[in-house]
Order: sequence, then C-alpha cells, then structure tokens
Amino acid sequence: MTNQAKIHPLDDALQLAVREPGVYTGRTTEAYWNMVGPFGGITAATMLQAVLQHRQLLGDPLSLTVNFAGAVAQGEFTIRATPVRTNRSTQHWMLTLEQPGPDGEPVVATTATAVTAVRRETWGVSDTPMPVVAARPAECERAEPAFRAQWLSAYEIRPVSGNLPTVWDDRGDDSLSQLWVRDAPERTLDFAALAAVSDVFFPRIWLRRARRVPAGTVSITTYFHASGAQLAQSGTGYLFAQARAQEFRNGFCDQTAQLWNEDGLMLTTSHQIVYYKE
Amino acid sequence: MTNQAKIHPLDDALQLAVREPGVYTGRTTEAYWNMVGPFGGITAATMLQAVLQHRQLLGDPLSLTVNFAGAVAQGEFTIRATPVRTNRSTQHWMLTLEQPGPDGEPVVATTATAVTAVRRETWGVSDTPMPVVAARPAECERAEPAFRAQWLSAYEIRPVSGNLPTVWDDRGDDSLSQLWVRDAPERTLDFAALAAVSDVFFPRIWLRRARRVPAGTVSITTYFHASGAQLAQSGTGYLFAQARAQEFRNGFCDQTAQLWNEDGLMLTTSHQIVYYKE
Repeated sequence: MTNQAKIHPLDDALQLAVREPGVYTGRTTEAYWNMVGPFGGITAATMLQAVLQHRQLLGDPLSLTVNFAGAVAQGEFTIRATPVRTNRSTQHWMLTLEQPGPDGEPVVATTATAVTAVRRETWGVSDTPMPVVAARPAECERAEPAFRAQWLSAYEIRPVSGNLPTVWDDRGDDSLSQLWVRDAPERTLDFAALAAVSDVFFPRIWLRRARRVPAGTVSITTYFHASGAQLAQSGTGYLFAQARAQEFRNGFCDQTAQLWNEDGLMLTTSHQIVYYKE
Repeated sequence: MTNQAKIHPLDDALQLAVREPGVYTGRTTEAYWNMVGPFGGITAATMLQAVLQHRQLLGDPLSLTVNFAGAVAQGEFTIRATPVRTNRSTQHWMLTLEQPGPDGEPVVATTATAVTAVRRETWGVSDTPMPVVAARPAECERAEPAFRAQWLSAYEIRPVSGNLPTVWDDRGDDSLSQLWVRDAPERTLDFAALAAVSDVFFPRIWLRRARRVPAGTVSITTYFHASGAQLAQSGTGYLFAQARAQEFRNGFCDQTAQLWNEDGLMLTTSHQIVYYKE
C-alpha cells in the first residue's frame, strides 16, 4: 500500500494511471488549485509526465508547448499522448487533455506538442549568463502568497526584484521580475518540476501597469537545456527565475523567461502568450 | 484560367486545395526550396494558411507552434487542420502535415498547434521598442545569398549587424543579428508572410562560433501582436528583424527573435529550438 502522507504534492499531482498505451487517467489536486482551475504549470507538467511515462519514449524533453484551451474542471481527466514520429535521435509528440462536457461527450481542455531528444556532447556556450545577483536566496525574504490561490503555497518564492506591487496605482513602469524559487516542501529537481515552475510568474501586466486585471496564460513553450543528471545534481537548491514581457497589445501580452540553477547553469528558456482584460 | 506568371511565389507556395473540410492538398515549390526540404518558414506559413482558409476560423492568428518532425519531400503533401476547441473569443487548432512513406502509409513530417483570437481594444504598451537603428534600409547593402539555397532569393535581406561571417575561424563572440528584410518580389504583408519571415535568420551557431556546422530548426513558436489591418498598412515596407541565442548545449540552441515594421510597430515575437552537430 502507498502511504499517501509521504508522497510529495507534486508527485501526487503527477500520478497518471495507464488505461491503455498512451491513454492516461489523472485528476486535479487541491495543492495546485488556482482560481478557476489548476495552476497552468501543473497542467504543463502533467502533460509532460504522460510523455515521460510512455513506454515508447526516446530521450529527454527538449521542447514542450502547452495550449490552455479551456479551464480544467476539478476531478478526473484523460490525457492522450501519441508519438507521431520517431527519428534516430528525436521524437515528436501530440497530446490532448480531455474531460466530459455538459452532454458527456469529451471536450478538449488542453493541447500540447513535445519533442524529446537523445542529447550528446557537443560544443556549447551560454549567451545569457545568469544576471549577477547580489542577494543569495537566504538573504531574500520569502514572499507571502501574492494572491489567494492554493498553488502558491507549493512554491517557496524569494523575490529579488520586480515583486508584485503593494500599491495598485496604475503607475508601473517595468515588467521584469527576478526571484529565487523552489518547490515547497523541497523536492529534487526533475523535468516535470521544471515544466511546472517555468510558469510560476504572476502575470506581467499586473507589474507593468500596477493594476490587477483578469489575466491567464493561453500558450506556453518551454525549451529544456539541461540533462536529467544535471537536474538531479541541482537537487533541492533554489532556481533563479527571471521573466519579462516584450509587448502588450489588444488583450494579449507575451512573456519571455529564463531559469538557472543556484550555480548559474541555464535550465530552461520559456515563452508564453497571456490573455488580459481591459 | 489562372495566370501562373502573375502569382507571387509566396501565394503560389501557399496554394491549398480543399479535399474535405479541414483536409488540404498542397505541394512544395522550387522558389522556397532549402537544402534537403522546403525552407521551414514556408512550411510554417503553409500550416497557418490551412487555419486561415478553414471555414470555421474564428479571429486572427495569435500563436503558432510548428514542429519539424522530418524533412518534407519534394511534391504533394496533406495538411489536416482541426479546430479542437472554440471559445467565445479564442480557438485552438491542431495540425499535421503528412506525406506517403516508403510503404505508402502516411508519415507525419510536421506537427503544429495554433491559437486564433478575436482581438479587442485594450490598454497596451511596448516593452521592447525597436532598437535605435542608425541605418535605414536604403543605406544598408542588400546581402548576397549567404549559402546556396533557392529560398534565400525569396527575401531581400539588408544586414545591419551580425551578418554571416566571411571568415570561418571559430572566433565568433556574439549571436545577435539585426537586419532589414522583405519579400522578394515585394508583397503586401499578411499573417502567412509574417509566419514565414519569422524563420528567416541563418542558424545562430554559425555566427556564435564562426563555424558552419549542420543545423536545422526543430520547433518554432511565433506570437502575433498586430492586426490584419496593421499588417496591410505595413504594405511592402521593410521589417526590422532581430535574433539572438540564449543557450547552446548538447546539440541544441535556442533563438529568440523580434520583428517590427518599418515604423517600429512590434509585429511578432518568435522563439525556436535548433539542432546542431558537433
């Protein structure tokens, strides 16, 4: 028997039962609940988990795009993960997450594509080194949850700069946030955890406008630069996470983000397009 | 009868015959041929074209992710475009491009997801204004094709900085390129043209290393920030295009790119992950 009390909330949320090859049943969990559905990052991680646990998997995650087509309702969902093309060293995946609609027919709530790859040693260089950060994690105060959402308690967030405004006076002037972050409780880093935390930032529009308007991620793409071994070596250390927007227009803004481990190794670069109102 | 001679090469490449709703037949064209398949940008544009010409289309392109699963062979291909979820103001698409494999069975060469959206007037701001460029397009010399590939003649490229090295001495030190670009011959800008030109940059690894190694895009995601009317207003003007890499490691590097119109209006932000050898 599994001792549920000992399972990390992330591993709990990632639990998928195989119904048939490539078809999984999962369910939302309270620990990652957002306002009208689960935290987008946990949905992204769960889609990736379906790939990771597929018996035809080749290599490690390289690229993951998750499109949030509609809110995921509380309860069970079905993920279908199909390796539509397997090459010598890369594999291409298409995925959907479905739940029964009002008439019982399955409705797609999330779509995704992923590429996995067998990586090999090559020349390499970092063209975006981790910003020189004066304050180490222990010197940055842990932030109180920025808004009322259960999933915020699943992360230990220590803002460095660009924290959520404390005064909503429409006088923001920048969209850059930098922070230290790790899972709470601590958990050794892996690909699924990285997929989730790549979506940890509050909406850029709240910072840029110093105004809290309804906002939500529509699509996120994450590129994975590190190996599984490097993630394991990162252990339970903090990640340095940075996000900024490039353009806000006609109801949507983008976000470009980078995550490094505590030693300054680039782990993911990530981009998303975000809906906002007003 | 259509006068083929008068069709712009881009419109020619984008021609799709509807076989049944959401299923199209297209074919590669010589004008956009790359080394072992068509230019990735033209494939991306053709996937988007399948969405744009679908009779259930809602709104304009917001986000497009195209995964290059395998080389597209010369000749006919089938694109399947499915609107898997239609909301009040957004629509989510899944797409594949197939060709017959060695045994006649269809093989997926490309996958894609797209989001289209009905945009509305909101607050907006640009957080990445076009770099101050001293040299206007007319003052920048048109580049000779950087390597032997037919598709390069389909663009008028006027490098501003970060042009292809002329000496391959392994002594590169930066991955940033800036250039003016437009379709050749001139053509009024639209979403498909933008999807194509977002992939116009030569591989960042060639510049960063000053070494020409085999390289190719694996996945590209483009976010569209402008309206169809704004694209039409951009007319046949030049685009200012900028690209740089963030990380090169173990056979893959990423690229982050921005495209503005000649007046400095942000049109797309785009990201890709690129395979390289050695």
